[in-house]
Amino acid sequence: MSRGFASDNYAGALPEVLDAIAAASSGHAPSYGNDEWTARVEARFRDEFGSDARSFLVFNGTGANVVGLRALTNPWDAVVCAETAHLNVDEGGAPERVGGIKLLAVATPDGKLTPELVAPRLIRFGDEHAVQPRVISITQSSELGTIYTVEEIRALADLAHNQGMLLHIDGSRLANAAAALDVPLRALTTDAGVDALSFGGTKTGLVLGEAIVLPRPGLGEGIDYLRKQSMQLASKMRFIAAQFDALLEDERWRRAAGHANAMAARLAAAVEGAGGVRITQRVEANGVFAVLPPGAAEKLQERWRFYVWDESTREVRWMCSWDTTPEDVDAFAQDVRQVVSGS
Amino acid sequence: MSRGFASDNYAGALPEVLDAIAAASSGHAPSYGNDEWTARVEARFRDEFGSDARSFLVFNGTGANVVGLRALTNPWDAVVCAETAHLNVDEGGAPERVGGIKLLAVATPDGKLTPELVAPRLIRFGDEHAVQPRVISITQSSELGTIYTVEEIRALADLAHNQGMLLHIDGSRLANAAAALDVPLRALTTDAGVDALSFGGTKTGLVLGEAIVLPRPGLGEGIDYLRKQSMQLASKMRFIAAQFDALLEDERWRRAAGHANAMAARLAAAVEGAGGVRITQRVEANGVFAVLPPGAAEKLQERWRFYVWDESTREVRWMCSWDTTPEDVDAFAQDVRQVVSGS
Amino acid sequence: MSRGFASDNYAGALPEVLDAIAAASSGHAPSYGNDEWTARVEARFRDEFGSDARSFLVFNGTGANVVGLRALTNPWDAVVCAETAHLNVDEGGAPERVGGIKLLAVATPDGKLTPELVAPRLIRFGDEHAVQPRVISITQSSELGTIYTVEEIRALADLAHNQGMLLHIDGSRLANAAAALDVPLRALTTDAGVDALSFGGTKTGLVLGEAIVLPRPGLGEGIDYLRKQSMQLASKMRFIAAQFDALLEDERWRRAAGHANAMAARLAAAVEGAGGVRITQRVEANGVFAVLPPGAAEKLQERWRFYVWDESTREVRWMCSWDTTPEDVDAFAQDVRQVVSGS
Amino acid sequence: MSRGFASDNYAGALPEVLDAIAAASSGHAPSYGNDEWTARVEARFRDEFGSDARSFLVFNGTGANVVGLRALTNPWDAVVCAETAHLNVDEGGAPERVGGIKLLAVATPDGKLTPELVAPRLIRFGDEHAVQPRVISITQSSELGTIYTVEEIRALADLAHNQGMLLHIDGSRLANAAAALDVPLRALTTDAGVDALSFGGTKTGLVLGEAIVLPRPGLGEGIDYLRKQSMQLASKMRFIAAQFDALLEDERWRRAAGHANAMAARLAAAVEGAGGVRITQRVEANGVFAVLPPGAAEKLQERWRFYVWDESTREVRWMCSWDTTPEDVDAFAQDVRQVVSGS
Repeated sequence: MSRGFASDNYAGALPEVLDAIAAASSGHAPSYGNDEWTARVEARFRDEFGSDARSFLVFNGTGANVVGLRALTNPWDAVVCAETAHLNVDEGGAPERVGGIKLLAVATPDGKLTPELVAPRLIRFGDEHAVQPRVISITQSSELGTIYTVEEIRALADLAHNQGMLLHIDGSRLANAAAALDVPLRALTTDAGVDALSFGGTKTGLVLGEAIVLPRPGLGEGIDYLRKQSMQLASKMRFIAAQFDALLEDERWRRAAGHANAMAARLAAAVEGAGGVRITQRVEANGVFAVLPPGAAEKLQERWRFYVWDESTREVRWMCSWDTTPEDVDAFAQDVRQVVSGS
Repeated sequence: MSRGFASDNYAGALPEVLDAIAAASSGHAPSYGNDEWTARVEARFRDEFGSDARSFLVFNGTGANVVGLRALTNPWDAVVCAETAHLNVDEGGAPERVGGIKLLAVATPDGKLTPELVAPRLIRFGDEHAVQPRVISITQSSELGTIYTVEEIRALADLAHNQGMLLHIDGSRLANAAAALDVPLRALTTDAGVDALSFGGTKTGLVLGEAIVLPRPGLGEGIDYLRKQSMQLASKMRFIAAQFDALLEDERWRRAAGHANAMAARLAAAVEGAGGVRITQRVEANGVFAVLPPGAAEKLQERWRFYVWDESTREVRWMCSWDTTPEDVDAFAQDVRQVVSGS
Repeated sequence: MSRGFASDNYAGALPEVLDAIAAASSGHAPSYGNDEWTARVEARFRDEFGSDARSFLVFNGTGANVVGLRALTNPWDAVVCAETAHLNVDEGGAPERVGGIKLLAVATPDGKLTPELVAPRLIRFGDEHAVQPRVISITQSSELGTIYTVEEIRALADLAHNQGMLLHIDGSRLANAAAALDVPLRALTTDAGVDALSFGGTKTGLVLGEAIVLPRPGLGEGIDYLRKQSMQLASKMRFIAAQFDALLEDERWRRAAGHANAMAARLAAAVEGAGGVRITQRVEANGVFAVLPPGAAEKLQERWRFYVWDESTREVRWMCSWDTTPEDVDAFAQDVRQVVSGS
Repeated sequence: MSRGFASDNYAGALPEVLDAIAAASSGHAPSYGNDEWTARVEARFRDEFGSDARSFLVFNGTGANVVGLRALTNPWDAVVCAETAHLNVDEGGAPERVGGIKLLAVATPDGKLTPELVAPRLIRFGDEHAVQPRVISITQSSELGTIYTVEEIRALADLAHNQGMLLHIDGSRLANAAAALDVPLRALTTDAGVDALSFGGTKTGLVLGEAIVLPRPGLGEGIDYLRKQSMQLASKMRFIAAQFDALLEDERWRRAAGHANAMAARLAAAVEGAGGVRITQRVEANGVFAVLPPGAAEKLQERWRFYVWDESTREVRWMCSWDTTPEDVDAFAQDVRQVVSGS
């Protein structure tokens, strides 16, 4: 199928990742993570997130979020997140049904929580009738293509810590944020006070695989048991580890994600100002959100794959991935301009 | 690492599976199973299990079992299984904690349920104080390397159906059973009255991937939601589907599993009768269970990887896999004979 | 302790209810609801809600809501409720953690859902990534002391049914609503299209006890099992049934709840217009919500028990109960007027 | 209904308990346990179980067990119990489905666990694939009418503590055991090393009510939240507390339970030796288990209520309660002798 703008998970895997899988398939290796590839990846995660960082490979993003949050919460705790969080709207109720975690969803203009938005939900501590806010979970980059700065993360971490709470990042697209901000992963996480995170591999270029990272010691009791119980422990773990090994090598993730970001910026620039196209969110990572004139989306979808994000407002989402080419962008942008000019 | 006899999940992936992964990574493909590879695999599963069969790819065996059983049970139902079932002893409480399913575990001599063993647990129907037996779940081939014949499966299916219950197979090693019995998958499942099954890919030679198969229509309401909620829905599904495509092509699974079985038979034959070696279970699939003289296992483990299955009885488990060679077996058997003769 | 305005669950039990408990304690009776008191109460519920109505007695309001909603939902379903719903804010996460149900909470001005407020949440039917809206749950009378008219309920029932959904009432104070509207229970529920409800006993004048009522046949599969499993099945059920027998006899609930309503109206009338007192919600049932001048609540709380409902807005809640007297109200109102005039 | 031998929960409530309920219904009282009755009962529990003992009143036995065990376990932990435990066979899957706790059920000859029976289940500590044994739960007196001595409890507590585990008692009939052994409650629990227990009120003579007791400090984190979330927190708590106040006053429970025990002993003595009656369990508390000749149970059930415990062995269970009279016993025993002599 030709490339479109539907989702970064429509893309295949980086060639080096495919090579790593093939190369890992030699001889026998202990299962469930007791292999040399996993050991190497754990060391790489320590290099990225600090010497105390522990990492736990899992299958998918929902798994990474749910296992990570289960490891941070008691059964009576709640997690504050944005109303638009993947956790809240795209995980089929797994946080509640599998994790047993009540989400306290907060409306946001741009997919980003702020201390001002979160603070009113941090109430009723010690009241047995109410779930206890325990974690603030943010998505970086957000579901709306926006990015938290280091300072914004630090402010949320401070708020959390002042309340005896923890800060969690759903980093399914953390690579895109780090690339966009041009900072080390550690600056965006460990050094900014983050207590736990999901580090996305799949959308960045793996076949499949995500990692839970616990940057500091003393948190996440029982996470090994929880990963297994949550059905996220791979038997032939070396095949997930080998992929991460390739992704983390030499910051390959940064180049892949940075390219996707650049393609989104190129697309936004190319359609901005075209009659009736309104970009609705700052284009900071690899997604472009826009409102098109009536009928335009339908016409474009005859030739290109992408999703209507909100039927009621006619807002569309265009996602770029590691394999999006400038030619893809230019061809699509030309079609956009043509369609809206004719509508 | 050199090959040993620890587990069939210590093996790598079949070369054709690795090729299929690489080949699948071209261009964009719709995510979450709306891709052509998944469509092709679904057709292959219909070819194997009958035209009504629906298949659902997941990440791992625990996921396949839990999602499958969730789709068959009400929240007040129970599942009867062998005490030795993977479900009961090796899934970290996932059936209970994630699936909410109480297991009724039955002691067996050989890992296999029989109508006689199961019947006493099929009581208290309609009694609100008791969980309601709804599913009989068997493992084929069993955790003890034994195999249910078609007639044995049919008898359990009849028992289940006569009680308004269902028969489920944990088929993490179903390929080994079908290869050993030299029958089509369908004869062992659909035609024998099986209502749902997990079809194992990982141990048979995939990088990772299992399938839930529902052979007949009308069962499994909500399984799509349950797979997602149970965190077993892959975004880049084509990469799991492509592996199954290679595995199912031309019954490649049968050759791989049949070879593993043959190696186990070769091993059993080579050590049987050696002083003090007692084979404890019929060697019907790819595992050999044996009791060794005191100290023998420890000595062997200095050179070979395998697990002590039961510390209290000194029973060991030797597993063969698709990549076990006759030379591996012969070298190991020679060491076994040497160690036990010296003990 | 002298009577205040903290909560209707600060009140004791109706004398007739106490008598009924004592009278029920004679001889032996089958447990778990197979007794004559329960049979009599079930008949009374049929009298109130229609000949198809089934009733299930439970211990408390959270139990009634969670068991009722579990009986209406699949594990992948969601319940739409008001943000202020007891279900959402005062049940300690039981709906999510015990029921496994995701709540879709909707902000409301007055604690009441409307079709306009609910409709935007009824989306993504058939999308496996999203929980499936299955039930609309309203609280009658609401947590803010407001009441749904029969027409308003019918409109919500129509909305639900048009979408293949169900309408549920948390009727912890349903008696107050029926008394206020001066209609039969049936008009407010069965005849208005309600599919399931919790009928509150405790706040209306029982020692303890609530009922789940399923007005129409064919809904609520497995509710007997779910009640037991949710730990809401009393062994000496006759003692809960006997209380309901007394409460339902001759519409005793209507007199008790109507009196509480009248006391709230008397209180509102007595303080309305006093300097700086602003009644914030229509006083339709047995609660008065008001904003007082700064410092006034604290002064009043030196002599009277009541809760500050919202610290941030200084809104207080004054609840009347079946045993509130006109003298209680007048004395309190006088103190309110005095305190606010001095502030 | 006339008194039979079906269950101790067929009995009504002690007169003093009924009086206490009526007396508690005066004036207003803070809800959810912040009342003077609850404070008084908490003091009484400290008197019984030691000055560190904390008590938490709940509605029923399943609630007491599940909340207590949730407070002792992590989500990856398991509870070892007898196969006959109420927890395992009569709580509708609540431990698994609501508590998320896997039970490791152990077959016993007499309903009692011993260190020898338990030890083989205390394996795989630290193995992420297996649930982690965390609690041993025993029933005192047991479901088969047998009693653990202080020394037997101490031995199990020692076993548990040596493994870093805890000992829990389902004490739905703890009063019967303490009366039978003629020891203080504390000797059987706190002083014997018990870490948590359910103290039964309902079967001992309450209308309804059970207590969770945590005898020592430092255990049971979050139990307040868990009680609420498990739907076991009564709003008008004073009515449960007042009952316990009457039950604990002057060891009223001991007289009530001791009487029931005496009636069971009287019954056993009166039927023992009658042709074909075989008492199957030591009669140590308030239950008699016996095997009758074919057809005898059916004939007796025409005039008397009791349960057939095991259809396959024709074993019956006869339970005595606080209100069973010597005349009841003698009349029943006479009928038993007559029926079996005629069979």
